[in-house]
Amino acid sequence: MNTVLFRSEDVVEIVRYVGLDGFMDLAIDRIEKACEEYDQDSFNAPPRNGFSYEDPVRGLVEWMPAIRYGHTVVMKMVGYHPQNPGSRSLPTILSTAMIFDTGSGHLKSVVDASFLTSLRTGAASAVASRILATSESSTIGLIGAGLQAVTQLHALTRIFPVDRVLLSDVDSGACDSFAARAANAGLYDIHIRTTTVEEVVQRADILCTATSIDVGCGPLFDDRGLSGSIHVNAVGSDLPGKTELPRSLLKRSLVCPDFREQAIREGECQQLDEYEIGPDLVTLVKGKSGYRQFRQSPTVFDSTGWALEDYVVAELITGIGENIGCGVPFELATVSADPKDPYGFIAASSAGLRVRSANAG
Amino acid sequence: MNTVLFRSEDVVEIVRYVGLDGFMDLAIDRIEKACEEYDQDSFNAPPRNGFSYEDPVRGLVEWMPAIRYGHTVVMKMVGYHPQNPGSRSLPTILSTAMIFDTGSGHLKSVVDASFLTSLRTGAASAVASRILATSESSTIGLIGAGLQAVTQLHALTRIFPVDRVLLSDVDSGACDSFAARAANAGLYDIHIRTTTVEEVVQRADILCTATSIDVGCGPLFDDRGLSGSIHVNAVGSDLPGKTELPRSLLKRSLVCPDFREQAIREGECQQLDEYEIGPDLVTLVKGKSGYRQFRQSPTVFDSTGWALEDYVVAELITGIGENIGCGVPFELATVSADPKDPYGFIAASSAGLRVRSANAG
Repeated sequence: MNTVLFRSEDVVEIVRYVGLDGFMDLAIDRIEKACEEYDQDSFNAPPRNGFSYEDPVRGLVEWMPAIRYGHTVVMKMVGYHPQNPGSRSLPTILSTAMIFDTGSGHLKSVVDASFLTSLRTGAASAVASRILATSESSTIGLIGAGLQAVTQLHALTRIFPVDRVLLSDVDSGACDSFAARAANAGLYDIHIRTTTVEEVVQRADILCTATSIDVGCGPLFDDRGLSGSIHVNAVGSDLPGKTELPRSLLKRSLVCPDFREQAIREGECQQLDEYEIGPDLVTLVKGKSGYRQFRQSPTVFDSTGWALEDYVVAELITGIGENIGCGVPFELATVSADPKDPYGFIAASSAGLRVRSANAG
Repeated sequence: MNTVLFRSEDVVEIVRYVGLDGFMDLAIDRIEKACEEYDQDSFNAPPRNGFSYEDPVRGLVEWMPAIRYGHTVVMKMVGYHPQNPGSRSLPTILSTAMIFDTGSGHLKSVVDASFLTSLRTGAASAVASRILATSESSTIGLIGAGLQAVTQLHALTRIFPVDRVLLSDVDSGACDSFAARAANAGLYDIHIRTTTVEEVVQRADILCTATSIDVGCGPLFDDRGLSGSIHVNAVGSDLPGKTELPRSLLKRSLVCPDFREQAIREGECQQLDEYEIGPDLVTLVKGKSGYRQFRQSPTVFDSTGWALEDYVVAELITGIGENIGCGVPFELATVSADPKDPYGFIAASSAGLRVRSANAG
């Protein structure tokens, strides 16, 4: 009974097979399709939960389960440890997904999901932006120039005629290295410039915020001089008390949470009353023709990261992997001849042990 | 950054290294110790949660997270698919555990936890029984002669002078094969006899119930003629509506749930009012000298299966595995040179791809 391991290098091989752009396009389309098909009989992706702590370092380990009934369960685990890049040369976010067959509970695969996590966050923003941002959007504003900024930008370039990026980050090193990192996504032909937060927000057609601002320290900018048709992908807010956007902007915008219950607890929606919150991502996608009228108004996608998105990209990468014979199979669970016999699998090879124990005793 | 895989065969090797009895003794002692040390600042093991469904078969996939703060997070996944033995020659319960370092969120190990799940259920019953059953208990009654019955019996033989087992199961095949399965635990010298449910409950010093009785179909037996000092390990009740014991027995017994919140929802405690529920396992162990007075009265350990037990055995098996160099290391997550660069690890080896894409296009 094999389990297939999709290591980081297997993920690379799969992404290379379809191409980075091709993989992003598939992720965007599949997330949109999953939203279109979503109903309570087909999917369940409850709010994430987790353990947070301050010792030995500030950190968080979360679980994000999702099921497509009659098919598979994906359990994505994600660690958030902001000291990782500085003290361990590890990414802040580390993630692994496990995929289980609902016919037997068998673990079908284990997937390195760190790359998939940042990729799906970009893809989800693209799904929302395709509905809510004007289709001629060409200037992308990025506040926070870290890992997420690259996948946000990459995803948006698959939908919009992007030719300019305005960038701001409290870490000037992140700004300096951004163009090289964007080039790894094939984004050579975009004019990228570091500037003030004020200029970023005032010139952006689409703004993405993806910072590590501390709890209680928002907003990142004042609600002044923004384009009347601005669309914001607010990605950084993912903890109770952590928010990035000015409340006045939220109050005058159509605010679409990825997952309402979670966004009220952890997202920009923390700053709103329930009646001020707009359609969630599923409602937005199912009613996209109607919601396109909001392209001329300020709109916000409140992205906290939804397990449904993880489900989709985990199925996508392993599906392609199976087709091209990628991944490392291993036998995790040896099946006993008698499923009622807990010790049979030990006894089957224990004659040697008994002799050894007798001698030792 | 290695992750170590402990496959079924690695678990066998580790268990053989310390011996099956030795491993059970360690599991019993470590679970008891974890209960002694348990407080809200050191451990967190919330109630399990899961997805249940009827299609394509009746099944359940659950997650059981636990943390020892400052140390590790263990996420145990468990599938319960009662049609597995009949239709797929798989055990009803399949389980995998993942262990994460709380310093970085790194996945330290992946462990086949099916064997550990039934073993720890036996070990937990032994912890409770050592406090609540009379120390001369020699006759064990088993209702339900499946997988769990073997580990229940094995664990009890490590504590009590067991010389007789009385057995009952609606599946006569399970009764017929029980002695051979017990022999795989080294239990050759115990007199094992299949009989009626009535005789089992009336003659048992310690009774273990571990059946697959359907929701709403309990109890398994009438509360008549039981020993005044009987101790019951009620193991089978693990779903809302599924219970095994007569309510009158519960009402006249000291009922100790493994984990109160979960037992009220899924265990025998469903049949009781809150004030009728006795100490949970942690309280029982911390106050063991006082609770020993109940050995002469009817007592029940209401075992629903607590994530703390899984935490303990997962740490135990991987700890021994590390010491003896067992397990298969693999690199799940390749670390990018720049943790802010999501595509760096692809670009680093993508020159070939770009050429191939150009040719293909």
